[in-house]
Amino acid sequence: MKKVNLKEKFQLFNAYWTPKILGEINNCYVKIFKAKGELVWHKHDREDEFFLVVKGQLNIKLRDREINLKEGEFFIVPHGVEHLPYAAEEAHVLLFEPKEVINTGDVVSDQTVTDLEWL
Amino acid sequence: MKKVNLKEKFQLFNAYWTPKILGEINNCYVKIFKAKGELVWHKHDREDEFFLVVKGQLNIKLRDREINLKEGEFFIVPHGVEHLPYAAEEAHVLLFEPKEVINTGDVVSDQTVTDLEWL
Repeated sequence: MKKVNLKEKFQLFNAYWTPKILGEINNCYVKIFKAKGELVWHKHDREDEFFLVVKGQLNIKLRDREINLKEGEFFIVPHGVEHLPYAAEEAHVLLFEPKEVINTGDVVSDQTVTDLEWL
Repeated sequence: MKKVNLKEKFQLFNAYWTPKILGEINNCYVKIFKAKGELVWHKHDREDEFFLVVKGQLNIKLRDREINLKEGEFFIVPHGVEHLPYAAEEAHVLLFEPKEVINTGDVVSDQTVTDLEWL
């Protein structure tokens, strides 16, 4: 294991909504992704998801409210809660979640990523 | 669940090496702590530990090398690996780790914290 510099890792890819794995902690992965535009409404039946904004602003629509995350702010979407992440401008996000999580949860769309890449 | 601003949470306590819980993701906690001086050599037999520096510099001595983490850098100490975290100046650190982790692992010292506080 080597140390990881987040800024350097974000320079290695450009595609939006494609999480990359940076490390594992027991049954969880540490991932990063770039956000711009919106993902799809979805939920994860069993897994909670941690979103920490490293750069920019990420918004997470819930059915009853909206969370607006700036740099240095995080939110945990509890399992079972429908959410729609979106970003007006490019945002860089750190994710921490159980290994079995798929980015679009219970929904399959052209944004679904099943073959996660390690960076 | 509300969003969490890391800087605001770090303003709520001053003691070093006393992790505070900010959230939970399935069987893991998100914690923060302030580092200055050194902890003790220890290991966690089953749990991996993720350290992300939010401010300052945290160093982690391993038996065969040393990891120096600046702001925006993380390191995962694998389970079973002895480590000694230290910081010359105050550093602010985000932790992800399984809920059962005790800060000084297999060692009990006057720095051991067993009654973790939520912030």
